[in-house]
This record gives sequence, C-alpha cells and structure tokens, in this order.
Amino acid sequence: MTDGPDFSLADVAREGLIEPSGAEPASHDGTGRVDLAFTIHSLTEGGAEAPPTQRGVRVPPGVTVFDAASWNGIAIDSTCGGHGTCHKCKIRVEGGQVPITRHDVRTFSSEQIAAGWRLGCLVQATRDLTVEVPPLTTRPKAATVGIGRQVILRPALQKRYVELEEATLADQRTDLVRLTDAIEDLELTADLHVLRRLSTVLREADFKVTAVIVDEDLIDVEPGDTTAARYAIAFDLGTTTVVGTLLDVGTGTPLAVTSMLNKQQPFGGDVISRISATMMDKDTLGRLQQAAGATLAELAGQVCREAGIDPAQVYEVAIAGNATMTALALGIDPEPLGVAPFVMSSAQPPSVLASELGLTLHPRARAFFFPALGAYVGGDIVAGMLATGMDRDKRTRLFIDVGTNCEIVLSDGDTILSTAAPAGPAFEGGAIRCGMRAADGAIEVIKLDPNALGEEPAVTLGVIGDVEPRGLCGSGLVDAVAELVRVGLLDSSGRLVPDESAKEIAPALADRMAKVGEERVFLLHRPTPQTEPAECVYLSQRDVRELQFAKAAISTGWTLLLEQLGLEHRDIQQVLLAGSFGSYLSPASAVRIGLVPKLPVLRIVAAGNVAGEGAKMALLSVRERAGAQALLEEVAYVELSDRPDFNDKFVEQLSF
Amino acid sequence: MTDGPDFSLADVAREGLIEPSGAEPASHDGTGRVDLAFTIHSLTEGGAEAPPTQRGVRVPPGVTVFDAASWNGIAIDSTCGGHGTCHKCKIRVEGGQVPITRHDVRTFSSEQIAAGWRLGCLVQATRDLTVEVPPLTTRPKAATVGIGRQVILRPALQKRYVELEEATLADQRTDLVRLTDAIEDLELTADLHVLRRLSTVLREADFKVTAVIVDEDLIDVEPGDTTAARYAIAFDLGTTTVVGTLLDVGTGTPLAVTSMLNKQQPFGGDVISRISATMMDKDTLGRLQQAAGATLAELAGQVCREAGIDPAQVYEVAIAGNATMTALALGIDPEPLGVAPFVMSSAQPPSVLASELGLTLHPRARAFFFPALGAYVGGDIVAGMLATGMDRDKRTRLFIDVGTNCEIVLSDGDTILSTAAPAGPAFEGGAIRCGMRAADGAIEVIKLDPNALGEEPAVTLGVIGDVEPRGLCGSGLVDAVAELVRVGLLDSSGRLVPDESAKEIAPALADRMAKVGEERVFLLHRPTPQTEPAECVYLSQRDVRELQFAKAAISTGWTLLLEQLGLEHRDIQQVLLAGSFGSYLSPASAVRIGLVPKLPVLRIVAAGNVAGEGAKMALLSVRERAGAQALLEEVAYVELSDRPDFNDKFVEQLSF
Repeated sequence: MTDGPDFSLADVAREGLIEPSGAEPASHDGTGRVDLAFTIHSLTEGGAEAPPTQRGVRVPPGVTVFDAASWNGIAIDSTCGGHGTCHKCKIRVEGGQVPITRHDVRTFSSEQIAAGWRLGCLVQATRDLTVEVPPLTTRPKAATVGIGRQVILRPALQKRYVELEEATLADQRTDLVRLTDAIEDLELTADLHVLRRLSTVLREADFKVTAVIVDEDLIDVEPGDTTAARYAIAFDLGTTTVVGTLLDVGTGTPLAVTSMLNKQQPFGGDVISRISATMMDKDTLGRLQQAAGATLAELAGQVCREAGIDPAQVYEVAIAGNATMTALALGIDPEPLGVAPFVMSSAQPPSVLASELGLTLHPRARAFFFPALGAYVGGDIVAGMLATGMDRDKRTRLFIDVGTNCEIVLSDGDTILSTAAPAGPAFEGGAIRCGMRAADGAIEVIKLDPNALGEEPAVTLGVIGDVEPRGLCGSGLVDAVAELVRVGLLDSSGRLVPDESAKEIAPALADRMAKVGEERVFLLHRPTPQTEPAECVYLSQRDVRELQFAKAAISTGWTLLLEQLGLEHRDIQQVLLAGSFGSYLSPASAVRIGLVPKLPVLRIVAAGNVAGEGAKMALLSVRERAGAQALLEEVAYVELSDRPDFNDKFVEQLSF
Repeated sequence: MTDGPDFSLADVAREGLIEPSGAEPASHDGTGRVDLAFTIHSLTEGGAEAPPTQRGVRVPPGVTVFDAASWNGIAIDSTCGGHGTCHKCKIRVEGGQVPITRHDVRTFSSEQIAAGWRLGCLVQATRDLTVEVPPLTTRPKAATVGIGRQVILRPALQKRYVELEEATLADQRTDLVRLTDAIEDLELTADLHVLRRLSTVLREADFKVTAVIVDEDLIDVEPGDTTAARYAIAFDLGTTTVVGTLLDVGTGTPLAVTSMLNKQQPFGGDVISRISATMMDKDTLGRLQQAAGATLAELAGQVCREAGIDPAQVYEVAIAGNATMTALALGIDPEPLGVAPFVMSSAQPPSVLASELGLTLHPRARAFFFPALGAYVGGDIVAGMLATGMDRDKRTRLFIDVGTNCEIVLSDGDTILSTAAPAGPAFEGGAIRCGMRAADGAIEVIKLDPNALGEEPAVTLGVIGDVEPRGLCGSGLVDAVAELVRVGLLDSSGRLVPDESAKEIAPALADRMAKVGEERVFLLHRPTPQTEPAECVYLSQRDVRELQFAKAAISTGWTLLLEQLGLEHRDIQQVLLAGSFGSYLSPASAVRIGLVPKLPVLRIVAAGNVAGEGAKMALLSVRERAGAQALLEEVAYVELSDRPDFNDKFVEQLSF
C-alpha cells in the first residue's frame, strides 16, 4: 500500500478516465455540437468485404456513438438496444480518446482496447470522433417513418421465446432467475403481476414460454411461442382530432389507422376553454379525463377490429399530445397551464399502464407519453421534432404547427429554439363567421379571377368531399385572404376596399362585395344570384381581422426566433408546416399573407401529421425515444409573453 | 488527437481507475472479507478536537466505506443516505488506493483528491483500507435494535418541509422541478398520483409544503409542515403469530406493539398444510392472501388506535415472513415451494403498495418484504440475520430458528452458510398428543425429582398464564424429554424404560408411567391420583419419537454446516435461539437433548423475535436494508435433501 494515489487529477482528466459528465461538453469549433465521422464496413451477399462507406453526422455532445449512428440510420449490432448489457455494439474509435469501461474490459483484449475498440453504447461523444463500424452479423430491420426518417427497428416491446431446463435439487434457481438467465443480454425486472403467474405458466407450458418485455420490464410470460404477435398503438391525441395507428413493431408495418373527434369536444373547442371548464366545476377534470380515455379506447378497439388483432396482444401505446391534452388524459389539474406564468406539473409524464387510461389492451400494457418543452410546446411538438429530425440536420429549418396555439421551432443546425404563439381560434374555424372544421363541405382552396368574362368563373372553390360548400376551414380562410390581397380587394392594412374601388380593381368580383348586418363581407359561395348575403358562405371584415391577428402572432414568433439566431428569411432552407391544417394550406397563400417567411414555395413543405409519426417512431425504436428525451435538454424554450419587444413586433407584422 | 489510448490496460487496472467490479474482490488474507481500519475524529461539546478513536471492522468485499461504517455504528455525515447525491460523506483514505469518481471531482480540490479525500458512499472496499472520518457536522440519531445493534437512523421514509418561490414568467420551472430543486441532496421521482395533486397542493398551501419521500420516490406533498408525523409499521408475519410494531422513524421509538394469530390458521397450522390447501382448490390462494392482508390490517388498525395515530400518516411497512408467508401475502402461487426441488418464484419480492395487501394506511404507503435465501430460509431469517448482525461479527456463531421448519445459519466470521431442516410439527405442538401452542395453560417448564419424599413434589410445572395445565407446548416438550433423559426414564435410544426399571431408577416418578391405549406414556399433570391417564396431560412414546426426529433433523443440519467449515462444537462462541419458541426454550434442556451443540449454557442466548427486530431495522435505516439485500450475496444456501450423507448423519443424531 502507498500513502495515496500517485497520479495527478489533471493526468486522469487528460486520459479521459473519469466518468464523463454530460454537463461539460468539449467541442471542436465552439458550436454546441460534435461531429462524428463513420467508416462503415459491410459484406457482400457472397460474404466478401465490400468497400467501406463514409458518413458524417452531427449530434449534441454527450450522445452515445450508438445513438448517433442509430438516429442517422447507421446500423450497429445490438440486441439490448443500447443498455450496455449485450456487449455486441463493437466499434473502433480511430481518432479521439474515450474512456474504458468495465464492460469494455470484459469484451475486448487489452490489445483491442489499445487499438481503440469499445462498446458503442457506452462511448459518449463529448468531442469530435472518427469511428469504424464493423460489418453487421445480423441484418437489422428498418422502416421509413416521419419525414423520410430511416428508423432501425429496436422497439421497447420485445418478445423472446425460451426453452428452459426444469429445476432440480442441484439447481434451485428461482423461476425468475431461471428465465432471466436465459435472456442474458437484458437486465430484466418483474413486477408482482408477473410473479403471480410465473411459476404456474412455466410449469403448465413445460418451461417453454415467451417473455414479453417492455424496456427492461418483464410484463408477462406467455405459454409457448407467441413471438409473432407484437403489437402497439401510436396515438396523436389532438385537441380536435385523435388518430390511432396499430403497428406491428416487429416489422414496423402499420396494420390499421383510424381517427375520430376528441370526445372532449363538448367541453370546448380549444385547450383554454377546456382548462376553463375544469376551473368552473371541480368534477369536470374527471369527466375530461374519462372522455380522453374513452376516445383512445374506442380508437384502439377500432384498429384492432380492423386488423383482426386480439387487443390483449397490444402491449404498449405511445401518445403524443400537447401539454393540456396530456394533463387531462392523466387526470392532472391543468389550471396552471391556462394562467400566467403557464407552468406544467412536470415536463416528463410518469410511466403509467394503458389500463389506468381506460384502455382494455394487455392488462400490463404500458403507456408512453411524450415529454413537453413548455406549457405551450408540448409532447406533440416533441414528437413532431423527432419525426422531422429537427435536431439531426445541418440545414436551417423552421417548423410551424399552425393551430389555435401555434408552435414554432427554429434550428440553424446547431442551436434549436422553440416558442408558442397564441394564434387564436381563426385556424380552427372557431371565431370565423362561416368557419367550420376541415370536414365535408368546407371550402379549402379558393381561386379568384378579377377579370373573368361571361361564363368564366370569377370564383373557383375547392371543397372537401366535393359537395355543396357549407363553410370555410382554416386553409380556405388563408386562401381567401391571400387571393383578396392578390387581386387588391383587401388592402395591406387588412381592410376590404370600398365598393367603388372594387368595381375598378376587380369588375368580375365587385358584386360579391356585400353587407351582412352592418359588416362588410365578400361572398365566396352564392347558391343563386338572389340568395341573401347572410345565407351565403362569406368572408367578413371581422374574419379578416381574426386571421390578421393570428398571422401576426405567428410571424412575430418566428421573427423573434430568427433575430435571436441572427438569421434572415433567406437563410431558411426549409419550412415545415405541420398538423392536419398544415397539410391543407397552400404554401403560396401562406407566403402571400406573411404566415411564413417570404421564400420560394418549394422550400415550404406540408409535413402532415408529424406528431403521429413521432409516436410511431417512439414505439419502433428505444433509441428514437431516447432522442425525444434528449430534445428536452437541447431545445431552448423562448417565452414570448414577457418580451418587451413583442408588441412592437406584433404591430409590425399585422399588415399583409 | 492521437491514434488511441497511450496507456496499457494493466496500468489502468493497477491504478484502480476502472469502475470496480463487484465480482472480482481482491482480499489481503485469502478470506472472503476485507478489513477496514477507521480513525474517527470528533469534537468536544466546547468545539475543540477530541482525541481520535480507532475502530476496526470486517465486511464483505464490495461494500462501500459508508455502509461498512454505518453497519458498525460509525456515523459519517450524509443526508441522501448513501445514494451519491448529497456529497456530504467525506472521508480520507489513508492507506490503499481507490478510484476517483466524477462526484469526487465536483466535491474536492485536486490537492484533496491527491491526499485521499473521497465520498465514502462511492468507495467500494475491494481490499483492506485505512480510513479517516472527519468530525460530524450534524449529530446523528441512533437507536438500539435487535441483539444490541446500534442503528444510525436514516429511514427510507423522510419528510422535508420547504418554502418555495412562486413561479413567474421568467421562472417557468415545472412544479415538480421547483420542488425537487429545493431538495437537491436527493434525486426524486414522482408518480402519477403525486403529479395529480402537486399543482393544487402547492398553490393552496402558498408553496409551503412537506414532501413525503420513501427512498427517492416522492409519494405525497402535504400542505404546511407535517414533518413531525413520520410513522411506519414493522411486521413479523409468522405462520402462527403475526406481530406489528408502530414506529416513529424519526426517533426510532416503538409507539405500540401488538400481536395476533395469523388468520390463515383455519387453512392449516404449518406452511406445508397451507400450500397443500392451495393445491386442492384453486380459490384457496385468494382466500389465504386475503387472510394475510386482513391480519396485517387488523394489527395496523390496533397499533394506530393504541398510539392515537392517524393511519394515513403511516407511509411504509416492512414485512419479515418466511418464503411461503411472503408468497401467500402477495398472492403468488406457493406450490413450487412445497414440492421438490423447492423453488421460489423470486428471491426478491417486488415493491408493492401497502394498499395492494389490503392495508388502509397512506394511500401510497409502500410495503417492503425481506428477500429470501431459499424456499426454506426465508425473509424472516434474513431479517433475523440483520438483527443479530450475523455478517458483521468476527465470532463464530450459530443461529437456529426452531419451528416446524428449522432454519440454521452458521458464520465463522468470514463465511456464512445457511440451511433448513424439516423438523416437523413437534415444536408447534401439532403432532404431539397433548401438544398445544404456547398459550395459556401450556406447560413450558418441567422439573423432575426422581427421589422426592412425602409432600415434596416429584413433578414441578411452569405453566403459561399460571392456570390449570391444558397441554404441552414445544419448549415444555423439550424440557420434558430432557428431564426424562436426565433422570434415566428415557434411554439414549429414546425408549421409555420398562416399569420395573422405572421403580428402581426414579421411585417418586414410577407411578407416572402409564398406558393410553397400547402406548406407553409419562403423566405430566394428573389432576387427582384417580384421573384416567387419557384425561391427564402426558408425554407419549410417540411424542418422544416426534421430538427425536425433529432434533435429529436440526442437529444433522448444524453438524453438516460445522463440517463444511471444518469446525468443532467448541469453536462456536455463541448460539442464538430465535423465534418465540427459542425465547421459551431452556438452554440447558436444549443442550441435554442435543438440539444445540454441547456448549456451556452461557454461550446459548435466547434471541427473541429477531425477525420483527430486523423489520424495525429495515424501516429505520436504508443502509441496514441494503445490508439485508447484501446477505443474499454473502450467505450460501446449503440444500440438505440431496446430500448423500444426510441419512447417515441423521441416524447418528437420533440418540439422546
């Protein structure tokens, strides 16, 4: 024995032997990210070595090499999914030093360790690294999900079929140890409900059983080989619409998709009215919780029936919802979300059983809720960021989820900012005179021809369901305003021009200018020339003001984020318009009214239901799920409501 | 950057910088243990430095310095209880090298680290160490529990009163983060039930609340300061008798103790008959589970009433029971425990809520069950080992819990062996003609005077409750047999001598030799000289055989354990007789019939209800609870039923 360690702390730190701390990233170039250069080896079908391929990826510091690869579609062998237990994710660090763990010591010879071999799931990229990936010994399955995201399948839900030796007096291992010893790449834990069944099932099935595992929790033991049945449901729990997708997590295949209105609708169309409802009457929270559960349960029943699947073989659900929908589904009082300073109980919803939500699936099926960045940048947006790869792209991208509450995320490839803008109910049709949801009969596309002659139509309408128009949905509203601005019937202050000017500017449309009560309107759909204005589908002056305020709030949001990163409109390489509304919105109209930055329309992409895609990714890959968690650390939340410059910017943004 | 690490693996291993593996202990002297030499500094009441004291302790390799100290009553500052989060348990390693962790780097300067300063809860003793403990900054509370065990109070159940700042737009931390930031020495997690209440309680209580914590789980948030009310219940869940002790875990004070018969009694007196009952009728398991819960619930109600405590302020229970009692209380099928090869579902019962057992305490109160070493060395014995410090004593000690199933533990100060011997129902009075439980009317002490004259009593009886004798309990049975052997009325083969011999050997007792049916008996209590033998309390030849088989099974057990460690009877420095039976048993009688090794009676100690004491310790100290867990690794379980030499030994042990 000596009197103490004979090395200095600095030596130790230099060698990188101290357990690295996630809080102290050391980056090469002063940005918040690190670059990993992968050299990927593979074998031809004949088994010969193919020429290696090179891939560069950029990730937040502290991410493991295994995650960095996985998030970018680069497959590395693994069965444990990156938990450090299977010892299969072998990589060689060619450049850069990394610590040695005890798992490395058990896996590699000292020569191999000296040559840079490590287990990839235990190497945290705290600085730039060059990494060599050996040929795969197994062929990983992958699925394309979200916005072209290649997801390597490693679901939290796994099944393992095992044939165990029966116990003897010389081998009295407990039933649980006997089972877990046979699944040595995972460190399983079992709850009481599994233990209650375990000994009976093992013996009745002659010790040939299938372990059902979610993460590292053994949730059931089924007799015989049931590995083919591995189902999960991804939910997009929207304020208005809820979508459920039944997935085979073994293949990534969606087996059935269905949607329905959120049964909370009778309590109010938007999150604020539902929060208010809970404040009026303390029993309302319970009823809203029940309504959310009933919605999810009905969708779950429908997708299982449609696919012919036994609901008891659905072992996990993932739910992407905004902070209010998440709180209500869990029975958490949403009041602090609805009043300043807008505080969540917790960013990270606790792990719950699907049965606690009112779902009748496997009795121990788990429910995963996406975490939230803030009261108004919720789990749906985190899921959307996952599906669009907002944190794994070097491009400068702007993500806008347009709705009553509009969430905005801006990434310059290094820093990611998020914020929420209170757009009001214009986009849901709520405050619009002839507004309606995007359902059959809603006008969603409008073309105006100010100089149409004779039989030429001055107004061309695109109507959902190709039926008689009944109203105007959010995207139709944007189109109507954009077209009226284009033809000059709306001036830049948002005022409908006087009748005299209208006749000069747009002779074919002037007779559409009318009054309903005291308010000036533009008639979009007039069944006959004799129909009273009030009976037509029209856009009113007040409707225009509603949209004007909404688009001002949204554009103020992204303007402030752009300023914060020192960016101009033209720096943005892609705008992603998310949500069901974003899918219908015409990029040209969005640009014209200033809802999105002035950019070529090709840079504006309708991203569709990204929240639901993110939920699918979370079910198909534990690494992607970890990525959603990592977003909470990476993405800064910018609160707009206490910004002193908000009002000035807002007024600037009001004009068209 | 270089091409790879420029140090060899051997260098790294020599420096002890690799995360140490529990599986590879390096010990100084070839024993399985490591020695720690503590130099303990303290301050006088005036604040001056008192002369340091020295203490040596011996612990299993891999135990942390903090645990090693805690288990031996040496206090080191800590608020997190050894979880590595409070950074207070500072110690200096004077001799021997230990790894540096990132927590050390955050806590100490590099000079201090070079001087050997470390956080004691993160230093694993894998080899002998000399450790300096600085004076305490807080005065730890301690309580004496078990067999003279000094327990430093650090219960799993903690309450923390906090006054939080209210949220603002500039500080939108979630309610949970706001609370956990104020309790920074613990890494708390909250489940759904806390999150449902959190925001409401915080706001109604003006952000002045008490966090209720079990381990690192936040189980409730109570308005105002409720830190004074910290209650828990320790249960000894015996096959026959169940004992509940209400504890104030803040002071270690027992507030009320009560006991009652296990409500499972109607299903059979011993574990085998209860296991059999579940095998006959599949509804019986549910009824046994309910009976166990009802017993615990009734005791809990009684101790709370007696102490005037609101049951909702009881936040944790600890339960020490044998493997069958544990399985039945949890509703786990016990069948594999009852048939060869005697396999448990799991050695480690899962964490459950007290409410899942049928207890109405705090709704989120936790129930901790002791883990088991084997199907017949259960959680009650693990608790007993904790209470007697079987693994923390350099003496050679033998622990015997005498009952229908007899558990035996032998420690030579380095190695600990355990086994179970099927003693049969003799000690519970089950198979004994006049047997009864140790209740009022049971003969528990017997003195025989073979040559009593005139009015002198030839038979002196000690009877429980000082009432008319009704039967014979286990300790009375041992006493009766021991006395009959002593006076010569029983020969060494266990046969009652013929009447003629009896008259010669013990003239004053010869008229007590009688027959009931065809069987010879010795009358212990004869109300009148005319009372028919069958109406008396007697010991029959068959009763003697029952005891003979029981004591042979037990002594075969400890004989085989002694042989395995190469020990003689005289090497044993202490015999601990445990269980309620052990408390009544006369050490002299136990020696005389060979139930315990032939030793001076002063070395034989009635240890009392050590299972209950162990349960109290688990409630008062998380370190002691970790110690119970560590016993599973330390103690080897020896299965007797497949030993080829068992039968030979058994026959040898049959004679008195």
